[in-house]
Amino acid sequence: MSFVKIPVKGMRDIMPLEMELREYIISLISETYASFGFRRIETPCVENIENITSNQGGENEKLIFKILKRGEKFKLEEARSAEDLVDCGLRYDLTVPLSRYYANNMNELDKPFKALQIGNVWRADRPQKGRFRQFVQCDIDILGEKSNLSEIELIIATTTFLKKVNLSDFKVRINDRRILKALALSAGFKEDECDNVFISLDKMDKIGLDGVKSDLLSYNYDSNVVDKYLNYFKSINNSANDFCLNNDIEIDNKVLTDLDDIIEVVKNINNINIEFDPTLVRGMSYYTGPIFEISVNGYSGSIAGGGRYDNMIGNYISMPVPACGFSIGFERLIDILMENNYKIPKNIEKYAILLDKDSSIEEVKESFNEANKMRSEGKIVNILRKSKNYKFQKETLENEGYKLIDKVLKED
Amino acid sequence: MSFVKIPVKGMRDIMPLEMELREYIISLISETYASFGFRRIETPCVENIENITSNQGGENEKLIFKILKRGEKFKLEEARSAEDLVDCGLRYDLTVPLSRYYANNMNELDKPFKALQIGNVWRADRPQKGRFRQFVQCDIDILGEKSNLSEIELIIATTTFLKKVNLSDFKVRINDRRILKALALSAGFKEDECDNVFISLDKMDKIGLDGVKSDLLSYNYDSNVVDKYLNYFKSINNSANDFCLNNDIEIDNKVLTDLDDIIEVVKNINNINIEFDPTLVRGMSYYTGPIFEISVNGYSGSIAGGGRYDNMIGNYISMPVPACGFSIGFERLIDILMENNYKIPKNIEKYAILLDKDSSIEEVKESFNEANKMRSEGKIVNILRKSKNYKFQKETLENEGYKLIDKVLKED
Repeated sequence: MSFVKIPVKGMRDIMPLEMELREYIISLISETYASFGFRRIETPCVENIENITSNQGGENEKLIFKILKRGEKFKLEEARSAEDLVDCGLRYDLTVPLSRYYANNMNELDKPFKALQIGNVWRADRPQKGRFRQFVQCDIDILGEKSNLSEIELIIATTTFLKKVNLSDFKVRINDRRILKALALSAGFKEDECDNVFISLDKMDKIGLDGVKSDLLSYNYDSNVVDKYLNYFKSINNSANDFCLNNDIEIDNKVLTDLDDIIEVVKNINNINIEFDPTLVRGMSYYTGPIFEISVNGYSGSIAGGGRYDNMIGNYISMPVPACGFSIGFERLIDILMENNYKIPKNIEKYAILLDKDSSIEEVKESFNEANKMRSEGKIVNILRKSKNYKFQKETLENEGYKLIDKVLKED
Repeated sequence: MSFVKIPVKGMRDIMPLEMELREYIISLISETYASFGFRRIETPCVENIENITSNQGGENEKLIFKILKRGEKFKLEEARSAEDLVDCGLRYDLTVPLSRYYANNMNELDKPFKALQIGNVWRADRPQKGRFRQFVQCDIDILGEKSNLSEIELIIATTTFLKKVNLSDFKVRINDRRILKALALSAGFKEDECDNVFISLDKMDKIGLDGVKSDLLSYNYDSNVVDKYLNYFKSINNSANDFCLNNDIEIDNKVLTDLDDIIEVVKNINNINIEFDPTLVRGMSYYTGPIFEISVNGYSGSIAGGGRYDNMIGNYISMPVPACGFSIGFERLIDILMENNYKIPKNIEKYAILLDKDSSIEEVKESFNEANKMRSEGKIVNILRKSKNYKFQKETLENEGYKLIDKVLKED
């Protein structure tokens, strides 16, 4: 077999300059959430096949990189389908592994447990510009807290981080899956039609109210029901309570007060721009309560999204554990920062010591001693041999911000 | 299918306290090598199957987690063996991907290129205490530099890091694959016997000179040859040059001078304990020149090892690229630090604000405002609801180093 020098299809090598930014952003995320009491954890990148093919992950389950059984367990002649050949696969998100982690380790964890995860996930999606089959997700979750303190904290912590990277012009939209459902039922849709209706509603951003209408009608839903439904979204005010009252929606009052309280507290902190948006859907079907999303003005799509999922951990253990999480679109964030030519705030002096090709051992010693002293003062010192094209080498180093310390005896 | 709450066999969940240490050590490694001009890079965790099953990796290639082809490329009925079913796999080390990376991106990289990689690798080894199937490797490599400046820098940078985590009582051992071979040939072994002889010699640490002798004799090598060979190792002095002269070994003088110069310069820096050790083998067959290892007194095995491998990148492109690398045993390092009860040097004040279950929205607002102000001053502030067992909650928080700010109106 011959060697292949390009990465696996849909994956990519990360160059030093981007890596520097990624490393800095990861440390800033970690530091910011730590200041809110979040603690970083890790699960294996490889997950039990049962957990990632159990219909928790919707479409993502079709995109799994599956791993072959090993040793005697691999029995090709007896295999009737791929399922018989695999016992694990690469995780497609961090939420499913987190639920397993909590169920497995809950006795050793804080209550509530505030978790930060930053790690790779894999999806064998059709490769396209800016989307890769291996990418970093950054998830923040509060497990074991049933009050809306979770939602408030997650939104405040995340917007605090966004401000630190100069993305202050953002909007937080918030809704509740129970309001979403109550509206659809109240308009006259049936329970089992809801998921499909939400898929249409979710396109509001892109195709507008009229677009959603044609979309819904194309499924042959009753046009009176569709009209009544879309009428709700024609005038939205910033209180879930007033909205549901005005539209005569029957729903538990606590759902509305909890949501309005989140908006009230969050808005109060540093003037965060947050609004109630009954058209917000969030794809994942595992959400059970408030759902929220942050978009940055000038950039399409969202940069972070999340919500409450009180039923997922119960899949692993026989007790329910309330849970609420937020996921930052790490790769989207890096793209935006690189597009903005974001500069890492740092002020480290960089020096290059250039040695002659034939420099004596005494000169080498002296250079390493000098460099070590400078490094202990916090400077970056790169010791290099003079290259054949000395002039080009000097220019390159100067362009990279190095100050030159020239130990070269004579230029050729 | 039912859910599985334990991790995949041989892999593990990382708890918050260990994760804090790991995160700190990674940042310290990164900062230390950055001060020597190294730049961090990343390759995908998934590698082309051709590159990881090409006999570059020795025994590790038997331990690969192989990934199933997807979509139409997966053809079970036509498959005659596992090879027909897979197109990629999880990387088993960071050196093979680095070589591919350099070949793929060399026009965009510094010359020489000083790379730092910290990332997971996977090996389906028999699980045993302290060894896992997913583990972090930390590799530092200099590509494109043929002089011994590489070896000197790698050793000085790595020992600088070890001192920063208070592991100052270490020993660096160094040898050269060419000396290793010259000794075996000079004793009378044949070229094709060398690899097997080195496997015996490599056990010197554990079984001593006599043990190596019985081991070699068990393969029916001529006892005169074995005696002559082992005689070399009875008196070793700290100069490769003197050692080869005394033993009448024929070898290119530059090999010896280069090695002695490395020892001379390294020893000169902060009194680093480095010695020439002609019994040092290093397993990987891809090494072509100097090889080295660091062990910490009081701990068996080595904590870091590396060497020069000038031929590997040439597998991908039609030109040779000199290369030299060092790998820190990251998991071993974490084990040692945890065993030593190593404390991260930090001084961040931690506060917990405790809220009543029924606290008013005004109290919640006030707490978040107060917390935000404290966080902006660099403190950690955790806002929590009072739990049913308030006394236990307070004690737990105090044990974790939190100072309590009590917003609870009345204790039950």
